[in-house]
Amino acid sequence: MEITPGKLLQNINSPDDLKKISREELHQVCSELRQYIIDVVSVHGGHFGASLGVVELSVALHYIYNTPYDQLVWDVGHQAYGHKILTGRRDNFITNRKYKGLSGFPKRSESEYDTFGVGHSSTSISAALGMAMASKYKGENRKSIAVIGDGSMTAGMAFEAMNHAGIADADMLVILNDNCMSIDPNVGALKEYLTDIATSPTYNKVRDDIWKLLGKLPIGKTFTREMASKLEHAVKGVVNKSSNLFEALNFRYFGPIDGHNITKLVDTLKDLKNIPGPKLLHIVTVKGKGYALAEKDQTKWHAPGLFDKITGEIYKKQPTAPQPPKYQDVFGHTMIELAEMNDKIMGVTPAMPSGSSLKFMMDKMPHRAFDVGICEQHAATLSAGLATQGMKVFCNIYSSFMQRAYDQVVHDIAIQKLPVTLCLDRAGLVGDDGPTHHGCYDIPYFRCIPNMIIAAPMNEQELRNMMYTSQLESTKYPFVIRYPRGEGVMPEWKTAFEQLTIGKGRKLKDGENIAILTFGHPGNFAQAAIRELRTNGINPAHYDLRFVKPIDEDLLHEVFTNYNKVITVEDGTVVGGFGSAVVEFMAAHHYNAEIKILGIPDRIVEHGTLKELHRECEYDTEAIVEAVKNMSNIKVKTEQMLMG
Amino acid sequence: MEITPGKLLQNINSPDDLKKISREELHQVCSELRQYIIDVVSVHGGHFGASLGVVELSVALHYIYNTPYDQLVWDVGHQAYGHKILTGRRDNFITNRKYKGLSGFPKRSESEYDTFGVGHSSTSISAALGMAMASKYKGENRKSIAVIGDGSMTAGMAFEAMNHAGIADADMLVILNDNCMSIDPNVGALKEYLTDIATSPTYNKVRDDIWKLLGKLPIGKTFTREMASKLEHAVKGVVNKSSNLFEALNFRYFGPIDGHNITKLVDTLKDLKNIPGPKLLHIVTVKGKGYALAEKDQTKWHAPGLFDKITGEIYKKQPTAPQPPKYQDVFGHTMIELAEMNDKIMGVTPAMPSGSSLKFMMDKMPHRAFDVGICEQHAATLSAGLATQGMKVFCNIYSSFMQRAYDQVVHDIAIQKLPVTLCLDRAGLVGDDGPTHHGCYDIPYFRCIPNMIIAAPMNEQELRNMMYTSQLESTKYPFVIRYPRGEGVMPEWKTAFEQLTIGKGRKLKDGENIAILTFGHPGNFAQAAIRELRTNGINPAHYDLRFVKPIDEDLLHEVFTNYNKVITVEDGTVVGGFGSAVVEFMAAHHYNAEIKILGIPDRIVEHGTLKELHRECEYDTEAIVEAVKNMSNIKVKTEQMLMG
Repeated sequence: MEITPGKLLQNINSPDDLKKISREELHQVCSELRQYIIDVVSVHGGHFGASLGVVELSVALHYIYNTPYDQLVWDVGHQAYGHKILTGRRDNFITNRKYKGLSGFPKRSESEYDTFGVGHSSTSISAALGMAMASKYKGENRKSIAVIGDGSMTAGMAFEAMNHAGIADADMLVILNDNCMSIDPNVGALKEYLTDIATSPTYNKVRDDIWKLLGKLPIGKTFTREMASKLEHAVKGVVNKSSNLFEALNFRYFGPIDGHNITKLVDTLKDLKNIPGPKLLHIVTVKGKGYALAEKDQTKWHAPGLFDKITGEIYKKQPTAPQPPKYQDVFGHTMIELAEMNDKIMGVTPAMPSGSSLKFMMDKMPHRAFDVGICEQHAATLSAGLATQGMKVFCNIYSSFMQRAYDQVVHDIAIQKLPVTLCLDRAGLVGDDGPTHHGCYDIPYFRCIPNMIIAAPMNEQELRNMMYTSQLESTKYPFVIRYPRGEGVMPEWKTAFEQLTIGKGRKLKDGENIAILTFGHPGNFAQAAIRELRTNGINPAHYDLRFVKPIDEDLLHEVFTNYNKVITVEDGTVVGGFGSAVVEFMAAHHYNAEIKILGIPDRIVEHGTLKELHRECEYDTEAIVEAVKNMSNIKVKTEQMLMG
Repeated sequence: MEITPGKLLQNINSPDDLKKISREELHQVCSELRQYIIDVVSVHGGHFGASLGVVELSVALHYIYNTPYDQLVWDVGHQAYGHKILTGRRDNFITNRKYKGLSGFPKRSESEYDTFGVGHSSTSISAALGMAMASKYKGENRKSIAVIGDGSMTAGMAFEAMNHAGIADADMLVILNDNCMSIDPNVGALKEYLTDIATSPTYNKVRDDIWKLLGKLPIGKTFTREMASKLEHAVKGVVNKSSNLFEALNFRYFGPIDGHNITKLVDTLKDLKNIPGPKLLHIVTVKGKGYALAEKDQTKWHAPGLFDKITGEIYKKQPTAPQPPKYQDVFGHTMIELAEMNDKIMGVTPAMPSGSSLKFMMDKMPHRAFDVGICEQHAATLSAGLATQGMKVFCNIYSSFMQRAYDQVVHDIAIQKLPVTLCLDRAGLVGDDGPTHHGCYDIPYFRCIPNMIIAAPMNEQELRNMMYTSQLESTKYPFVIRYPRGEGVMPEWKTAFEQLTIGKGRKLKDGENIAILTFGHPGNFAQAAIRELRTNGINPAHYDLRFVKPIDEDLLHEVFTNYNKVITVEDGTVVGGFGSAVVEFMAAHHYNAEIKILGIPDRIVEHGTLKELHRECEYDTEAIVEAVKNMSNIKVKTEQMLMG
C-alpha cells in the first residue's frame, strides 16, 4: 500500500524546507506529520505513542534551531520518528526497524542530524553537555539541546549530568518532556513532584504574583516598613534559595507549557535560544497524542505491532495449534506460584513491569513486587539490602540494561555473596531494537565475577526449575538466569517444580565423533540441527550445560574423553563467553580437541528479525548443521552448488 | 608502642556500654575516641580525616539507636573507624587494613554491626531502603539509617534511591554528612546548593518566620483580607510545593545542624527516631576535625600514611637511589605534554583528580581538564559527547569504579566507535583497600565489547607511548589503557614519544621450550623470574603482548609454533581475561600446547599489601619461577624440603 505524506510534508526534505513554512501553517505540518507516523507504523510496525507525543516539539525544534549545526540529542530515541521524517528520511521511513533499514533509534552513522546514538535512557544530558563544552572551548556558537522524558529523568546519570551542567557554564537547554510515562506509568517522588508543579498554577506565575503582592503591601502604622521588609526578606530567602528542584541545581527553569501548542512552543524556544547558561524547559505532553486509543491505553500502544488505523484493531496472528508462551510470561506466572509457596520472595524491576511480566505479581501481590523506576543501579542494591534481611529477591532487568547495574552486582551482591536472583530477560540478540538493546555481553561480564551462579534455560520447564532452585534456602549465592526475548518451545509449560543441582548440566543425547554443547535456548537450534543431520547419517552428541558458572566439569571430562570434535553454541558474544569457558577448561585439563565456538561475533550487530540476525551471526540451526558437516569433513552445499 | 584508650573508651566494648554513659560525659567519649583514632592511624596508617569528622555522629548514633537491631549503613565506609571502635573492635583496631586484619571498610563478615559492605560511594540509601522495606513487610519496628557524604550524594544512584524512598512509605533516615569534601573538594551544583542552605539562616527557621509574619498581617481597609489570603496562598504555593531539593523528593528535611555538637546531635536523633517515613538530617562537619593540620589540608590528610602525631610530620621513606615514579604521575605529567602538542585533548575524571594526578593538568589548563564529581556514568558519556565534536578525551577512572560506567562505555562509546581514551588507574589488585577496590574484572568486561582497543603498559615508557598513540588522529577506536596502583620501574621515565602499532606486542627475549606471555606490569615479575631461572639453567622466552584486544595473532602464531609450553601472566582475573584470550586463539587455530594461566583467582581476594596479595594469588616472581620449573619437570622446592 502506498503511503502518501500530506501536501506540506511531502515537500519537506530537510529542516531548511520546514523553515520556509509560515508560522501559521505549522499546525498543518504537525497534523500531517502525525498522520504519516500513524500511516507508516500501523502497517510497518515500531514504537508509536512516544513519537505522537512529540510531534509539535519535533517541528518546533527544527523550525527554530539551526540543525544539524545545533546539536539535538533525543533521549532514548524511540520518540524520534518525527525528527527522522523531517530530516531527509521521510520516504525511507517505511524501512524503519527492518533488516538493513533505518534504525528505530537515532544513530550517528545514519544521519548527521542524529548527533548521538541512543536507546538506553538518560544519556542525553551528559552527551549534550559534552557538545556544549566542546563548543564553548572552540569558541563556536553552537546550541545543544537534550530532550528527555520525565521517566528518563529518574535515572541517576541524568541527575549526575544536571549536577555538572549546573556549574559547567556551558550553554545548553534541557527539554523535560513530561508525560508521566515510560513504557509503563512512571513511578517515584520526582514524578509526583512534576505532576505537582505541572498542575499547580505555574511556578513562575506564582512567584511573580508574590513579588507583585509584596510590592502592594500597604505600609502604615500597624504594618510597618520594617515588617514589610522582614517579610520580603524571608520570602525571598525561601523562594530564591530553595525555589525549584531544577533551580536548586542551578538550572533556569521555564514552564510548564503545553507541549502540543505549536505556536507557544515555537515562541518559547525562540526566546530560550538567546538565554545563555543551563536552562530547563518543562513541557507537558500526552503520549499517543492524536490517536485516541493510544492516549487512553498508553502502555498497550507504546509499540503495538501492526494495526488497523481506522478501527484500532491490533492484528494478532491466530495460531492454529497451541503456541509456546513467551519466556517473560513464564517468569511472570512462575513468580506468583513461587511467592505463594515462599513468603520471603519479593520481585523488583526497574521500569520493566510489562516487559518482564513482573506486572502479574505486582497486580496480585502489590506489597511484594515493585517497579522502582528507571534505576537499574538502585534496583540491584535495593535487592541486596532486602537480601540482608533474609528476603529472597528476584530482580528482573533486561540483559543490556543490566550493564547499568554492573558495579552494584559486583560490589553489593557478589562480594557480599548475597543470594539475590537476577533474571536477565532479553539476553542474547533482541531483534529489531538493534545494537543498543542486544544482550550480548552478560555471560563474559558476569562469568568473571566470583561467587556467581549463571544459568540459562533451554525451555520453559528449565526456566521454572532454575527459578525454583534459586529461591531455595540452600542456595546461598547470587543466581543469574538469562533467557531470551520471545517464545520458548513448550505449549504445555506449566510443569511441576524440580530442584536442579547447581553446576550440573545434562546429556540430551549420545553421538559419534562430534559433541554439541549448548547453553540456553540455542539448545533448540542444536536439536533441530541434529534432526536434520540424521538424514545425512551424521549423529552428533548433544549436551545442555545449563550452567556456565559453575560449569559442569564432570560433564566436560566426559565430553572431552569421548569426543575430539566439539561445537559450542550460545546466544552471546563468542569473546569470553560460554565457548571460552569450555576452552579454558580444555586448556586447564590438557585436552586437545578441535573446537568451534558459535555465537554472536565480535562486532556490532545491527537490527533485524531474530531469524535474520541468528542467520547473519551463524548460530542458527543451519549454521550448526554446516559446522557439524564441516567438522565431519563432509562437503557443505555452497551457494554456487545450489545455483549450479 | 602500646596505645591506651582513654578511661571511658577502654570500658566501651559494645554500644550497650556506651548507652550506660551519661549524656554529660559523651563529650569525653568523643574526645577519647578522636584521640584513639589519631593514636592508631598515626602509627598504623589508614584513612584519617573522614573518621575524625564523624566522631560525634558515630557516638550519637550508637547512643540513640538500638544497633545492631537497628540497621546503620555507612556510605563508602572509610569514615567508620569510630563505629568499629565502638562496636567491639577497639583492641583489634591496630590490625586495620593489614593482611588478615580488620578491613578498612564495614564488612558484613566482620561484625553484625556492619550491616552492609561498602567501599564504593552512594550505595547506602538503596541498601538502607531495602532494609526498611523488609522491616515493614515483616512488621518489625527496625530503624534504618544511611549516613552519606555530600560528595556521595552527587552520584546518580543516591538520587535513584531518594526518588524511590520518597514514595516507598518506608521508615528511614538519611543523614547527609556535609563537609564539602570527597578525597578532593567536591564539585557540582548540589554542593553549591548545600553550601547555600547551610550558610543561610536555616531553612526551617525562615519558613517559620514567614508563617509568623503572615499571621501578623494587619488586615484593614488598604490591605484587605482578600489580599492577605492571596498572598498567603501564593507564598504557600511556592514554599510548600517547591520548597527544598529533598522535600521535592518527598523527604522531610531537618537541619542543617552542627555535626560536632554531640548534645544537639543526640537530641535531634532522639526526636527523629519517632518520626515515620523518609527523612533527611543535614549535618555540617569538618573533615579532619580535631587535628588542626588535617582540618587545614584535607586532601593531604585523607589518608596520610604514618605520621608523628605531635609534630604532624608525615613520614616518607628517604630513598638512597632515584626511584621510579608512580604510574599515576606519569599519566598526570604526560597529559600536559600531550595537551601542549594537541589542542584537541581534554581530561575528565570523576572525583579522582589527586588519585589520578589529572590535577596537574587541571591546575595548569583549567579549561581543558575537569573533575566532574562522583559520577562515573556521566563522565563516560560526557567524554563521548566531547568526542563527537572532535575532542580527544582522556577519561581517567579507577578500574573498579569503571564498573559504574560499564553501560556507558558499551552504549555511548563502543557502539558509536568514538575514540575516547579510557585510562584505568588502579587496575589489578590494589592492596589494603581490599576487595571493593581491586580492579580485577576490566579485562574480561571490556574484552567482550566490539571496537575496543585494550592495552596495558609494562612500564612508564610504554604508558607514555600508549597515551601518545591513543590520541593520534589515525586512532579511530575507543582505547583502554590499564595500569596498576603504585610505582613503575623506570626512574628515568621521561622518554621520547613513539607511536605503537595497535595490536602488536613485542618479543622481549627468545628462549627454550617455554614461553611466558605477559600483559602489563606483571611483565616485570616475569623478567625477574627469568633472571632467577637463569641460575638454574632454565631459559624461557618472554613476550609482552601490550594489547589484549586486538591481540597480536602473528606473535601468538610465532609463540605456538615455537613453544609447546606457555605461561600467561596478568594482573586480572583468570576467568575470561588475557589468558582466556590466549586459549581462545589456541583453540581457534588448533594449536595444542600445555598452558598455565597465572592471575587473580576466581574468588574474592581480601586486603593486604600488594606483595602479600600477589604472593597469595600466585602471580608474583616466585610463582612464575615455580610455574616454569613445574612445566620444565624440575622438582620445585616444597615447604617440606625447605623445612627438612
